[in-house]
Amino acid sequence: MSDFPKSVEFHEEGVREGFQMEPLTYPRERRIALLDALSATGLRQIQVGSLVNPRKVPQMADTLELFAELERRPGVRYTLLWLNESGYRKARAVEGAFNHAPLMYYLTDAFALRNNNRTALDMRAEQEAWLDRYLADGATVQKVYVLTAWGCNLGGPVALDSVLDAFRHAIGLFRDRGLPIPPLYLADTMGWASPEEVKRRIGAVRELAPEARIGLHLHDTRGLGGANVYAALSMGVTLFDASVAGLGGCPFAGHKARHTSGNICTEDMVFLCHELGIETGIDLEALIEAARLAEDIIGRPLMGRVMHSGALKAFRHGKTADSACASAP
Amino acid sequence: MSDFPKSVEFHEEGVREGFQMEPLTYPRERRIALLDALSATGLRQIQVGSLVNPRKVPQMADTLELFAELERRPGVRYTLLWLNESGYRKARAVEGAFNHAPLMYYLTDAFALRNNNRTALDMRAEQEAWLDRYLADGATVQKVYVLTAWGCNLGGPVALDSVLDAFRHAIGLFRDRGLPIPPLYLADTMGWASPEEVKRRIGAVRELAPEARIGLHLHDTRGLGGANVYAALSMGVTLFDASVAGLGGCPFAGHKARHTSGNICTEDMVFLCHELGIETGIDLEALIEAARLAEDIIGRPLMGRVMHSGALKAFRHGKTADSACASAP
Repeated sequence: MSDFPKSVEFHEEGVREGFQMEPLTYPRERRIALLDALSATGLRQIQVGSLVNPRKVPQMADTLELFAELERRPGVRYTLLWLNESGYRKARAVEGAFNHAPLMYYLTDAFALRNNNRTALDMRAEQEAWLDRYLADGATVQKVYVLTAWGCNLGGPVALDSVLDAFRHAIGLFRDRGLPIPPLYLADTMGWASPEEVKRRIGAVRELAPEARIGLHLHDTRGLGGANVYAALSMGVTLFDASVAGLGGCPFAGHKARHTSGNICTEDMVFLCHELGIETGIDLEALIEAARLAEDIIGRPLMGRVMHSGALKAFRHGKTADSACASAP
Repeated sequence: MSDFPKSVEFHEEGVREGFQMEPLTYPRERRIALLDALSATGLRQIQVGSLVNPRKVPQMADTLELFAELERRPGVRYTLLWLNESGYRKARAVEGAFNHAPLMYYLTDAFALRNNNRTALDMRAEQEAWLDRYLADGATVQKVYVLTAWGCNLGGPVALDSVLDAFRHAIGLFRDRGLPIPPLYLADTMGWASPEEVKRRIGAVRELAPEARIGLHLHDTRGLGGANVYAALSMGVTLFDASVAGLGGCPFAGHKARHTSGNICTEDMVFLCHELGIETGIDLEALIEAARLAEDIIGRPLMGRVMHSGALKAFRHGKTADSACASAP
């Protein structure tokens, strides 16, 4: 009936997405403990932090120190995020930190100005220079992101044509250079996606470059994250960014929204995949333990569901639990 | 591509599901204020409370007083839940309270014993007597529920055949009496459902009685609630139980699980339907206000997403908000 993939990969972003938005800066050793726990789950890509303006995002000011102190487990790619020249220079200066070079397309000026102090067209024009610089510096570009690919709280609805124009531009850069097209990521930065629009936009992007893999960066801002992942899986999407325990959200959001503006929750989506018979390479029970550690570090209940209710493995094998729920219906 | 319905109906259960599990009994006037707010949203069915053992569920001890004091808005059906003879007698004694007579099938002894002190087979055998009693008392049976229709934390996995056997039994009772088949509800009491199994079981139940409507009572225990609703909508399901703000869960669950074991969140699922172009008859902004009132009454952040992030209507029309999220990607 549907075209589910055999296996999918998750890029764990909770340590960046989650801790950058907290009012506190948490002790580095605790964030390293969480990264260690995540490294032992089978995750193959884990984002460690961002190299951004420490005055604006002080929680990430020690990202390079954290990266240096982290014990890097073989087989796991530890990634950093940068948004500009200054961040890039920092990443270049650290051995092993320059391994996640994405191109980034903005579709609304309001968001591009707020996040990068440039218009969307200016940002687009810079991507060719970034690509050539990454290539000259010996990096493989891992991803092309198109941000707010369904809509933007600041700039309003985003037309599919705008999304396709951005991807066409990126695809052209790679084709002009005889390079393979890297994975194409649609980012639902502010939670505008709904499942039928997920399917429609994935289908349209796939037509631009059928040979490229497609990825999604989804937030569960409005409660449709799981439905959107399910819709994407039914379209054969195999790459997802996600955050353990549902950590994450926006550092500039008001307090009321903070606890619900997170990314899709890694362990809940791993559970979804496993229930659908899709492999993830991840030990769900170990990931649930990591989610509980994240909650312990943050110090308040986090939004993940499976981390609180437990997965089904134990119940399937006849173990009954204290948390069993008994109220009809 | 999919067979989405033109419109769906929600049965709001938050005031029962939500308040029955809280350690406190909240003031009746506040629960009435919430019911008033819900009544003004366009919801056509709202559950007021349950008539169960006040020693076990003291939060519901004043359900009949609440029902009597409530100003009932024309066009809204206010429902009560009972599980046994004693509860039924109470409902019968109150004008207007006897309007939601369901048959209830249990599939695991462990859950039937815990919830009703009977085996699943004993409970099944009683349903014929209940039906005839409801008919003799002048009621229309509104629903047939099959509980734990995907699995049970206490009793383990539930085979599809068990679900079908229960519905066959119920359908036989109605056909034997020349009565139309009421809506057939699959209840995912403990959060075992996943979207492909939702589709498979709905398809199989529909074959038993193609003329009957199918309904779902879903919990978001393991983060798949939205994906399950989306899967059900793609199968043409038009009836959903849900709880405002994601209220609800199990009165016997431990504290850790309490804030995540709730029902699917009414306003998030209404938002999903509207994004899919499916009518609900509900004013989403008014429902969000009711969700915020529920959070104010309960006194801690609740699990609903749209109630915190806002729906998209305002953003689509160019309003930008303080809660706009700006972090890449």
